[in-house]
Amino acid sequence: MRKINEECGIIGIFGQKKQNVAQMTYYGLHALQHRGQEGCGIAVNDDGVYKLHKNTGLVTEVFDVRTLESLGEGNIAVGHARYGTAGSKGAVNCQPIVVNHVKGNLCVALNGTLVNYAELRSELELEGAMFHTTSDAEIIAYVITRERIKSKSIEEAVNRAMGLLEGAFSLVIATSTKVLAVRDKFGFRPLCYGVTDDGTYIVASETCALDVLGAKFIADVTPGEIVLFNKQGVQNIKDNCGKVQECPCVFEYVYFARPDSVVDGSSVHEARKRAGRFLAMEHKVEADVVIGCPDSGIDGAIGYAEQSGIPYGLGFLKNKYIGRTFIQPEQGMREKAVRMKLNVIKETVAGKRVVLIDDSIVRGTTSVYVVKLLREAGAKEVHMRVTSPKFIGACYYGTDIDSPDKLIANKHTTEEIAEIIGVDSLGFLSIDSVKKIPSNYACHNYCISCFTAEYPTKKPDLQGKSKFESKITKNV
Amino acid sequence: MRKINEECGIIGIFGQKKQNVAQMTYYGLHALQHRGQEGCGIAVNDDGVYKLHKNTGLVTEVFDVRTLESLGEGNIAVGHARYGTAGSKGAVNCQPIVVNHVKGNLCVALNGTLVNYAELRSELELEGAMFHTTSDAEIIAYVITRERIKSKSIEEAVNRAMGLLEGAFSLVIATSTKVLAVRDKFGFRPLCYGVTDDGTYIVASETCALDVLGAKFIADVTPGEIVLFNKQGVQNIKDNCGKVQECPCVFEYVYFARPDSVVDGSSVHEARKRAGRFLAMEHKVEADVVIGCPDSGIDGAIGYAEQSGIPYGLGFLKNKYIGRTFIQPEQGMREKAVRMKLNVIKETVAGKRVVLIDDSIVRGTTSVYVVKLLREAGAKEVHMRVTSPKFIGACYYGTDIDSPDKLIANKHTTEEIAEIIGVDSLGFLSIDSVKKIPSNYACHNYCISCFTAEYPTKKPDLQGKSKFESKITKNV
Amino acid sequence: MRKINEECGIIGIFGQKKQNVAQMTYYGLHALQHRGQEGCGIAVNDDGVYKLHKNTGLVTEVFDVRTLESLGEGNIAVGHARYGTAGSKGAVNCQPIVVNHVKGNLCVALNGTLVNYAELRSELELEGAMFHTTSDAEIIAYVITRERIKSKSIEEAVNRAMGLLEGAFSLVIATSTKVLAVRDKFGFRPLCYGVTDDGTYIVASETCALDVLGAKFIADVTPGEIVLFNKQGVQNIKDNCGKVQECPCVFEYVYFARPDSVVDGSSVHEARKRAGRFLAMEHKVEADVVIGCPDSGIDGAIGYAEQSGIPYGLGFLKNKYIGRTFIQPEQGMREKAVRMKLNVIKETVAGKRVVLIDDSIVRGTTSVYVVKLLREAGAKEVHMRVTSPKFIGACYYGTDIDSPDKLIANKHTTEEIAEIIGVDSLGFLSIDSVKKIPSNYACHNYCISCFTAEYPTKKPDLQGKSKFESKITKNV
Amino acid sequence: MRKINEECGIIGIFGQKKQNVAQMTYYGLHALQHRGQEGCGIAVNDDGVYKLHKNTGLVTEVFDVRTLESLGEGNIAVGHARYGTAGSKGAVNCQPIVVNHVKGNLCVALNGTLVNYAELRSELELEGAMFHTTSDAEIIAYVITRERIKSKSIEEAVNRAMGLLEGAFSLVIATSTKVLAVRDKFGFRPLCYGVTDDGTYIVASETCALDVLGAKFIADVTPGEIVLFNKQGVQNIKDNCGKVQECPCVFEYVYFARPDSVVDGSSVHEARKRAGRFLAMEHKVEADVVIGCPDSGIDGAIGYAEQSGIPYGLGFLKNKYIGRTFIQPEQGMREKAVRMKLNVIKETVAGKRVVLIDDSIVRGTTSVYVVKLLREAGAKEVHMRVTSPKFIGACYYGTDIDSPDKLIANKHTTEEIAEIIGVDSLGFLSIDSVKKIPSNYACHNYCISCFTAEYPTKKPDLQGKSKFESKITKNV
Repeated sequence: MRKINEECGIIGIFGQKKQNVAQMTYYGLHALQHRGQEGCGIAVNDDGVYKLHKNTGLVTEVFDVRTLESLGEGNIAVGHARYGTAGSKGAVNCQPIVVNHVKGNLCVALNGTLVNYAELRSELELEGAMFHTTSDAEIIAYVITRERIKSKSIEEAVNRAMGLLEGAFSLVIATSTKVLAVRDKFGFRPLCYGVTDDGTYIVASETCALDVLGAKFIADVTPGEIVLFNKQGVQNIKDNCGKVQECPCVFEYVYFARPDSVVDGSSVHEARKRAGRFLAMEHKVEADVVIGCPDSGIDGAIGYAEQSGIPYGLGFLKNKYIGRTFIQPEQGMREKAVRMKLNVIKETVAGKRVVLIDDSIVRGTTSVYVVKLLREAGAKEVHMRVTSPKFIGACYYGTDIDSPDKLIANKHTTEEIAEIIGVDSLGFLSIDSVKKIPSNYACHNYCISCFTAEYPTKKPDLQGKSKFESKITKNV
Repeated sequence: MRKINEECGIIGIFGQKKQNVAQMTYYGLHALQHRGQEGCGIAVNDDGVYKLHKNTGLVTEVFDVRTLESLGEGNIAVGHARYGTAGSKGAVNCQPIVVNHVKGNLCVALNGTLVNYAELRSELELEGAMFHTTSDAEIIAYVITRERIKSKSIEEAVNRAMGLLEGAFSLVIATSTKVLAVRDKFGFRPLCYGVTDDGTYIVASETCALDVLGAKFIADVTPGEIVLFNKQGVQNIKDNCGKVQECPCVFEYVYFARPDSVVDGSSVHEARKRAGRFLAMEHKVEADVVIGCPDSGIDGAIGYAEQSGIPYGLGFLKNKYIGRTFIQPEQGMREKAVRMKLNVIKETVAGKRVVLIDDSIVRGTTSVYVVKLLREAGAKEVHMRVTSPKFIGACYYGTDIDSPDKLIANKHTTEEIAEIIGVDSLGFLSIDSVKKIPSNYACHNYCISCFTAEYPTKKPDLQGKSKFESKITKNV
Repeated sequence: MRKINEECGIIGIFGQKKQNVAQMTYYGLHALQHRGQEGCGIAVNDDGVYKLHKNTGLVTEVFDVRTLESLGEGNIAVGHARYGTAGSKGAVNCQPIVVNHVKGNLCVALNGTLVNYAELRSELELEGAMFHTTSDAEIIAYVITRERIKSKSIEEAVNRAMGLLEGAFSLVIATSTKVLAVRDKFGFRPLCYGVTDDGTYIVASETCALDVLGAKFIADVTPGEIVLFNKQGVQNIKDNCGKVQECPCVFEYVYFARPDSVVDGSSVHEARKRAGRFLAMEHKVEADVVIGCPDSGIDGAIGYAEQSGIPYGLGFLKNKYIGRTFIQPEQGMREKAVRMKLNVIKETVAGKRVVLIDDSIVRGTTSVYVVKLLREAGAKEVHMRVTSPKFIGACYYGTDIDSPDKLIANKHTTEEIAEIIGVDSLGFLSIDSVKKIPSNYACHNYCISCFTAEYPTKKPDLQGKSKFESKITKNV
Repeated sequence: MRKINEECGIIGIFGQKKQNVAQMTYYGLHALQHRGQEGCGIAVNDDGVYKLHKNTGLVTEVFDVRTLESLGEGNIAVGHARYGTAGSKGAVNCQPIVVNHVKGNLCVALNGTLVNYAELRSELELEGAMFHTTSDAEIIAYVITRERIKSKSIEEAVNRAMGLLEGAFSLVIATSTKVLAVRDKFGFRPLCYGVTDDGTYIVASETCALDVLGAKFIADVTPGEIVLFNKQGVQNIKDNCGKVQECPCVFEYVYFARPDSVVDGSSVHEARKRAGRFLAMEHKVEADVVIGCPDSGIDGAIGYAEQSGIPYGLGFLKNKYIGRTFIQPEQGMREKAVRMKLNVIKETVAGKRVVLIDDSIVRGTTSVYVVKLLREAGAKEVHMRVTSPKFIGACYYGTDIDSPDKLIANKHTTEEIAEIIGVDSLGFLSIDSVKKIPSNYACHNYCISCFTAEYPTKKPDLQGKSKFESKITKNV
């Protein structure tokens, strides 16, 4: 049912004293699990000695009491939860990356994607470098390491490296004594930090990880900023990378982020409700009940109901026990697969005119089945409202929205899509409105490339990268 | 967060031809997973030869493609998902139970608890019987097997056995050629059946399992009834066990059953909404938002909101990735454990007067933390409304509601409980109302023993049973 | 390479005080692992409360520190290592069997096979009994349990039961306060007991288990005897089952038992050396070196070398890392499979006339490859000598020697076998000699049924038993 | 019982056509398992695309049918079995190492240890290099990669790299189209190659791996040689590294290599027998039986017996089922641990004067228990003879002989050792003789540094290396 995948959640911890930072990172990663379910890892630094455990799987699968204890105590930790593309599976591509170097240890965790991976790698290899993986994080670690030799401090090395890296990257970087939080100059992916009562700093992709650890939010890392945490406290360093207009991803609000998070000053839950309200204004319809497609359509449905006055209802029950090991029905039963995950609560929809709120339509396949379920349950009319505009472009900034030729909106008009899906009416949120769903939209300019196919950066050399990827498969 | 445990979901399949009944049972059990997460099993009958696989764990943990395939095809299958009490863990206590006997194979799956276990077992052992487990199902299988020797048919044997068994038992029983669905004369635990387009009969604890398999509901098994499925179709046999007033468990509606199920003619979702509506009438309050405690308080909150006119809001985000292997925080962090599972959506409650709907209060411990979370998020007032009456009695009919001396309502008044929990006001559903939450309540008399401590049967000899249990632990 | 399988090793411990009997049993079973590698189990009794852990796999696979510790301390323990036939796999068929009964706990571990299984089971089932497995041990436990009701003591119940059981059975039986060692009246399978310095009694299939535990050998359990261990010490009870001539299995000396064990007063290593000496006298040949086929041909080769004066040499290196999970080469590479397990030490055989000692020839398949390896390594002549007579009959007493129509000796003369195998000469030990390989042969009459196809008991109703087996497969 | 550990067995395959090289490598590694049991890996090259699977564990643990199949077919494969020191555990340190580079793929497997690791790594890091592990193989891969940029061929790059690497290294290196076998100029560790009937070339640490694959031995790789395998066949390239006297490790014959292997022209089994014969001449004694301590004392015992005329006997039975997961007895039972692995065959030694042959004495701890076992079994006299000289120096060339201050021979005279161990007499092989145990000793000069503490190379900067090792632990 998950249609689009975010690539990674990251977390960093800097404590004033030795403590159980491994367990704190575990809980933080657990709160960020929605950002990446393919693999995860935790690195703990105790007085300059790093211990690392990472593997493929959910946080609760990769870590048990024994592995967590094996990481020991420390005052610095870095955690990573990742979603990985098909070509780069295996523990070897998991993060954080930890390297020992004559200039000291370095630990890196990345959320994002470089658009100049292929160029950087070729260049480095021709200077003698050797890479074990095809992860962007290894390139980033290499570039920082190389700059470090000529720099007076890790901050300076990172600042130099930022001038060489292009694309989307939110980073947590740790040495033996410092933690750095870094966000690219566009600020594509979120990153924020907070502090606990006892003075432990937490950097995380989303505020929900701060909440779980009882930390008070301090600020978002701003685009192009380096935030340094050490014994002396917090220090903000503005990157010298040249001014460009920031453009954080708006789809974080629509779908990626957790509704209880606040991203760059706007509540995700509120943004989704606002999307529902805008839809109610843009695409009015007479109906008896508004229901949301779980999970990310729920908030929008409540907003639509409030704005329209049509009562909100519980339309679906989602099976909680679907997991990685669930055996999917065979080809012929594809339709049943949806039924196993979602069941309609008949009493809510039978004999009624239903407004169905969903967050997006990618290929339309799932929507077909969801609508069919409602029809079978006796819905008289189904009016679908989507809390985002039509997808027409790929995303190069750390998510895997389908390639443009697979996107239904590139092949069909709204009317055609409505017919394919089997709804009585269909409405997408306008591009103008999507930019205003975060409540403090006035202060930000958002990335909406996937809705416009226009990009703030150059496009990546995907073939160049796949040349490296296709040559080796490591089942480690 | 799960406060009370149901003991088991059961399913039986009878097809006219050989087919992949193992996979059907897998999907059916998956839909019934909420009724038991400790262990599960599937038995498949192919022309008189039974194959069985069972173990501790969730359906998705116990079965993978290989084990499912090892069961092969057949025309009859029986499945079981169980919750087990501490003393009876291990694969050996999982079900179904399959025995081979000179009179033929017998396969039994049980939802329920006998109140005369100890008497029956002692009696049988003194006649020479030997038992491997302490599960009620083994006793039931033994009694049926013994009656079978003197009976002309399995139906007759089961009918005789029903005269000896006392307590709550919904059963699926299969031989080489027949499937039987049996419900004790009180009808404590639900059981229903349906049929697919191609004539395959499905017996299941709840209708949600029929939905997943695309089967059309035919009827509930009525209290004291034996329903027989074989090549000739369906045959209803009324038990000769003597007339008593039926009393199906009302708590199935409040908490156990899935909201998308229809039990004995009443929608569970509707029943929960009705509970919310009754509460709004019984315990009115001025407030700004109504929220539900996930998952079973959600439906009630929608009902309360509708009846009261106070807007419904999304108060909590529940972490989806909590699983069996989640590492709980240590003692001192117990409070954090709740935070990891539930996070408040601050925008919904901050500065507001909140009505919080929950399904029940057992010891009150969890409520304390939930209310604290709301307060920390800025809720101005918290008014708790509970969609069931106070628990004052144990349950002997297949669930594990805490022992009476642990129940908070046996030690404190409503006002005291409100103070302990930290709410501004507290209201429980009245006993009169709870009996009316199922929409066709007029046709049924429900078991409300846990709210009254009055019981339709004799009480079980718990010490007698524990005498058997305490002597052997099998870690198989 | 293992051609014939023994069915089980058993061990029982009775200590005067609470101690780590689980670990002692673990080490004892480990020493008996050669008698059964399919599954194993340990039951520990602490003051009347039994804990049991069993599963399929080797002792080192089934038990880890955690499972061993979960068994706790106690003063009585029973252990079992089993080899299981195809039809009866799964943890459910593992032993010991532990049952709780109004008359007390009973724990049973069996080495052997009943010849009247089918009759007993049908009879019991028609009286109302219900069985979960097809293991002989469950029948035995049932019969003892039934007799126990009418008996004054467990000894009396066992004595009565022995009158009903027919076939080969060495048993360890434990209650809450006693351990019993039982051997059928023929004494087919070995059983002995000893005592440690601190007065803990050990019953075991072979003396090598006593050695590992530092226990001093006391005596073999004699055919038809019940030996009782309790707080008062040891008590020998002679079974009233009627006098018959004892006939312990001679193949224990040839192949089954460990060479460092002493069985019924004769050293296994010495018996094998004697077999080699007899062969050197019966089947003389001019040669340059005598080599043994590992492992059970080694002792015989040393004996042959000593008697003949031909030097002993190391002919083969056996790969130590072959295990359950070794991936066998595909069909076409079957020959390579032998090569992976055995490699010839060329220097020992190249250009030489070789005497090759092996313990037995069943189908001859392996011998073909072994001889081929020697030829390829440059052996000039290969003279095979076998330390047992030709197999012509099945074994019904607890081993799985192939069915008569598969035995090469039933289809070919010695000369033909020599040609098939590709040896220059071939000699089997005579039936007269095999009876004399145990050094104190004068005191015993041995079972040689597999060499004569004449049996001391009635033959079992194999079809009757398979009727029960074929109906259910439990993958538990 | 294993006292000294070899660090690694390696194998490479070059086939003329696509075939199941993964399975061939599996069988080859299995034959080399004695050289390393900590981890293993296989890399398969199919037309330039590499697939790699590696992990900690035995070959039979790391590979199952599924993982082996996932490697697919190809014409080139490289395999590695490793023993790892404590500081460098985890899959990340397993081999082969496979890297993709603009100049092509590179796959490296190493047996050996560099003595200039610390210098090389510091130098490379200061030029910008970044390392993930502390394995020598990663450094070697990096050096070759860097040289490759300036070289016309991989051969040339390897040749240049050999000029920079110091220490012991036998290597298998593969690209997309070639396999190279490389041995350092001293030839410390063995390496040989052969060819199968269908023209597939096999490179391996020992000939036993060729035997298993049915390959015919061609030659040993000579010290300082690079052997190239490609479509054109075999090509021998002599390294330009400057002439030094070769010195292959003599302890390969005493202990490391498999007795069925032929190393640098000498049979290992014969070498061990010769060691026994030399001992019989150097340390004569009157006795009744000669026994060997399994496994590597057996061949020596046969040699001693032959030379002395004292009969050879089977003194011990070694338990075959001891494995990685065997639960060791607690501290107080340390003595029992030996008993569980070795049991004396009493009949062989009781009342006799015994000559016990073992391959070496490191700390002496195990010998104490072995001798005690013989005494308890009734041995009248025990005369220990050791098939190697006394250890007095560390080994820097790929094995882990204990640090000099732990070696018993550095603290005690032969007489004192005899007393500590509890033998009536003790004799070590002389240094002169150990150099002659390989049968073609006349053609070679062997490394005997561990017996003389004089080294052919500079000593490594162990502290320099541990500086890198101590900083990071990766539990991957």
